[in-house]
Amino acid sequence: ELRSKLDSLHPADIAYILEALPLEERLFVWDLVKAERDGEILLEVSDAVRESLIETMAPEELKAAAETLDADELADLAPDLPPEVIQDVFQSLDHEGREQLRAAMSYPEDSVGALMDFDLMTVREDVTLEVVLRYLRRFDELPDHTDKLFVVDREDRLKGILSLESLLLNDPESLVADVMRKEVMISFEPADDADDAAQAFERYDLVSAPVIGPDKRLIGRLTVADVVDYIREESEAEILSHAGLREEEDIFASVWDSVKNRWSWLAVNLVTAFVASRVIGAFEGSIEKLVALAALMPIVAGIGGNSGNQTVTMIVRAIAIGQVEQSAMQRLLKKEISVALINGLVWGGLLGILSWWLYHSAALGVVMTAAMTLNLLLAATAGVAIPMLRQRLGADPAIGGSVMITALTDSGGFFIFLGLATLFLL
Amino acid sequence: ELRSKLDSLHPADIAYILEALPLEERLFVWDLVKAERDGEILLEVSDAVRESLIETMAPEELKAAAETLDADELADLAPDLPPEVIQDVFQSLDHEGREQLRAAMSYPEDSVGALMDFDLMTVREDVTLEVVLRYLRRFDELPDHTDKLFVVDREDRLKGILSLESLLLNDPESLVADVMRKEVMISFEPADDADDAAQAFERYDLVSAPVIGPDKRLIGRLTVADVVDYIREESEAEILSHAGLREEEDIFASVWDSVKNRWSWLAVNLVTAFVASRVIGAFEGSIEKLVALAALMPIVAGIGGNSGNQTVTMIVRAIAIGQVEQSAMQRLLKKEISVALINGLVWGGLLGILSWWLYHSAALGVVMTAAMTLNLLLAATAGVAIPMLRQRLGADPAIGGSVMITALTDSGGFFIFLGLATLFLL
Ligand SMILES: [Mg+2]
Ligand SMILES: [Mg+2]
Ligand SMILES: [Mg+2]
Ligand SMILES: [Mg+2]
Ligand SMILES: [Mg+2]
Ligand SMILES: [Mg+2]
Ligand SMILES: [Mg+2]
Ligand SMILES: [Mg+2]
Ligand SMILES: [Mg+2]
Ligand SMILES: [Mg+2]
Ligand SMILES: [Mg+2]
Ligand SMILES: [Mg+2]
Ligand SMILES: [Mg+2]
Repeated sequence: ELRSKLDSLHPADIAYILEALPLEERLFVWDLVKAERDGEILLEVSDAVRESLIETMAPEELKAAAETLDADELADLAPDLPPEVIQDVFQSLDHEGREQLRAAMSYPEDSVGALMDFDLMTVREDVTLEVVLRYLRRFDELPDHTDKLFVVDREDRLKGILSLESLLLNDPESLVADVMRKEVMISFEPADDADDAAQAFERYDLVSAPVIGPDKRLIGRLTVADVVDYIREESEAEILSHAGLREEEDIFASVWDSVKNRWSWLAVNLVTAFVASRVIGAFEGSIEKLVALAALMPIVAGIGGNSGNQTVTMIVRAIAIGQVEQSAMQRLLKKEISVALINGLVWGGLLGILSWWLYHSAALGVVMTAAMTLNLLLAATAGVAIPMLRQRLGADPAIGGSVMITALTDSGGFFIFLGLATLFLL
Repeated sequence: ELRSKLDSLHPADIAYILEALPLEERLFVWDLVKAERDGEILLEVSDAVRESLIETMAPEELKAAAETLDADELADLAPDLPPEVIQDVFQSLDHEGREQLRAAMSYPEDSVGALMDFDLMTVREDVTLEVVLRYLRRFDELPDHTDKLFVVDREDRLKGILSLESLLLNDPESLVADVMRKEVMISFEPADDADDAAQAFERYDLVSAPVIGPDKRLIGRLTVADVVDYIREESEAEILSHAGLREEEDIFASVWDSVKNRWSWLAVNLVTAFVASRVIGAFEGSIEKLVALAALMPIVAGIGGNSGNQTVTMIVRAIAIGQVEQSAMQRLLKKEISVALINGLVWGGLLGILSWWLYHSAALGVVMTAAMTLNLLLAATAGVAIPMLRQRLGADPAIGGSVMITALTDSGGFFIFLGLATLFLL
């Protein structure tokens, strides 16, 4: 009964169920799934769950599952398959399939080539729409997300785009060449950055777009479904990276896998915390004389970290939408410094008064205000400079900014506050 | 020359340029844009930039721009338009347009109703495909993202879906009723959650889907382009909210606007930092006696915060993909506690040895290890409990988890470490 229920579900729904089940129950359900659907379901599940399923499958099962897939889908699955299975599947493909699989696997993960498929509907430019319509009726189905046909010449060079819209709205007697779009065709090359392609899909509201190689030869196609999956994965990765998580953890993953996923981030944080601790250690004499410093110093460090993270987030976003040039850098820096100054005087002033009231020392209040303001200025400067420098060095401006800012504002905040206190209070 | 360059650009490209320019230059470019394109460009720019453009426009200009838009687009722009402009535009609409505008504006921001448009191509079920093909040829264009026609009866009730694919592949003599899809039609209601609709678009790789009201009456349509925009906005909002930023700041926004955007988060953080500071204040006697405590305590607090944030991020993701039930809650809690225990013993042990070596006190090292382990356990428990409780109370589990965890692990970490030290070292 459960089995027939599963048969009626969309593969993505089965994937969703498998992801939400603990390992034992997951494998129980997986056994009930018809073998010929294994391939499409493996494509839909998350990496962590996919691994857990593949581990339990025999090589022949994997081979059978892989053979139900297209070359582009196989390429997606390949990194998780045992080499001998890939070898076997590769042998079983025809020449074109091998070429496609080789092509799809040869592009890096974040490129258009890794996202494209090979489900191309092509027509010639010298025929009438009527001929195209009759040609289409010979098929049982169109590739998913077919909103346009690709007009190519004998050498597979892309000559134009025939949208289904123009196919449907124009006189069937018209020639393809007369109604196809020849200019401003949006197309990609396999080596193009997938981020840029995703941005183009969003900006121009595309459903599909051709991927061309040297000589404008049509080699594949990008569809909005794959772009949407890519966008979702990228934003999940960004959100996870904020907490120092390398990848989506299967929530039922083993304790050991979780420890491995979180380990490196905690190690980095411990190192920076240890450095901050040594900064405090250098001022132990001052703290011994004025123990209020110990209670107030985390406030100075904390607000710097939070404010700096706000700045980093803004600048990274600004860089991502583009065109943050040198002139803009100075302008942004000036603005962030002004914001920091206002926040420092307002919040620092408030905390200064509170410290004065708590510890009956006006001088301590002034040091508190000054230290908070200075640490906010440090945070603003670093918050602008770190992502801008990373970009100029060709690195991803989004990565690591938050750790660096926090390390800087912690150690810097302790140093500024305890330093000022040592100079002016003792 | 710049003007004719602008005329040839896609509205989304102009929007992109406007967003990347400082205010003066932005307004200069905006003046060069043809008035009849103002509407479509205002739709594309970010909220912050849109405000800055609308501020400079006269009511007549705004009215002219608004009148170039469809009802669903007008509804998106409406919150930023002066009421008298909306009133005027509303008067100028025909009956159907008014009904549509009213409908589009009546749904909350995160609902399907707010995302839908009214560009519906409908056909009857009792005609042949040939008739449909001839009917379509009377139009100059199809609505964007038309991958299917909606089959309705005289009362506009949705009877089925005729995909362009079946229209193209089937015999033109067939009846619509015979080739349309009647079952498992994916449709939405205007009050449906936009997140759920976006998930369905992703899962079933949809290009468009009907929106139906009471009695299955067809009232609108959702397209993948609007869903993609929604997904992008949601994930940007999530990323910004991690840094306590309420909305995308125009990078050239005034200092004052930036201060307002960041204000509340800093205030919350200051309150929690102040509480943590008072926890330390309660142990000032102990710190005076053993000043090493002041240097070591931020390490205990910091690692708790980082580890807790990892747990919160994992649990929020797990809840978002669904089905984290009571049984799962216990399992997850057990796992997170195991991970925390391992991390505590390993990292805490390491830091314990470092403290022993630095301060020549084995007892201090043991207290350090114990405090770090306990604070990691606190972080793990709270990291699982906070999002789960928020969900059970019907609140968004993603919001505020990070602040609460950090507040708890800061204050808790100081209390645990200083408390243990006071008990066992003094
Ligand atoms: Mg199976
Ligand atoms: Mg395919
Ligand atoms: Mg691929
Ligand atoms: Mg990337
Ligand atoms: Mg778009
Ligand atoms: Mg595909
Ligand atoms: Mg203008
Ligand atoms: Mg429209
Ligand atoms: Mg709308
Ligand atoms: Mg639309
Ligand atoms: Mg929502
Ligand atoms: Mg999908
Ligand atoms: Mg901190």
